Amino acid sequence: MVNQSATLDRAFSALSDPTRRDVVQQLRLGPASVSDLAARHPMSLPSFMKHLTVLTNAGLVASTKRGRVRECRLVPDALDDTERWIADHQRTWRTRLDALDFALQKGSPE
Amino acid sequence: MVNQSATLDRAFSALSDPTRRDVVQQLRLGPASVSDLAARHPMSLPSFMKHLTVLTNAGLVASTKRGRVRECRLVPDALDDTERWIADHQRTWRTRLDALDFALQKGSPE
Repeated sequence: MVNQSATLDRAFSALSDPTRRDVVQQLRLGPASVSDLAARHPMSLPSFMKHLTVLTNAGLVASTKRGRVRECRLVPDALDDTERWIADHQRTWRTRLDALDFALQKGSPE
Repeated sequence: MVNQSATLDRAFSALSDPTRRDVVQQLRLGPASVSDLAARHPMSLPSFMKHLTVLTNAGLVASTKRGRVRECRLVPDALDDTERWIADHQRTWRTRLDALDFALQKGSPE
């Protein structure tokens, strides 16, 4: 439970930055080299690498070295826990709103 | 776009902490007073209030004062943007995996 909570901490925290969300969106299209990813972002390479490290530590992105090129890719199903957490929340909330709506309609004068 | 990005920043950041996720989960069940919410968490009231402020600034929780009691509630649809962002990501990713799976099956020897 603690581990799952820590996983959610890291995943949500990783997604709380627009540069990191942009990297995840780019990698949806397929693996890309660090230099290709970095080229899209107006910051120094060390700053960009810090963002990549956050994504890697959160388990969202993995990388492998091929010769002189480090290639990044998304980790499949890495966002499952975050998606499930939010979806559960929305479902409970909507069920409550539907129940309230039903109660209001039932209670309204004909 | 910048505004939506800032909204996502704040929402994901708010959800990156287990105390704050617990408050959201508690408030799914209905509105609750600050003191009732705080009683569940082993920390000082000022520390707990900081967490509530983060949730409020992220637009996830709203509160109103009734006499001496401050009542908190979830803001309906506040997690829509975060849910949509993650769901879009998962959909694209799964479509790509399905396409890969199909290509592999097609290419495999009979």
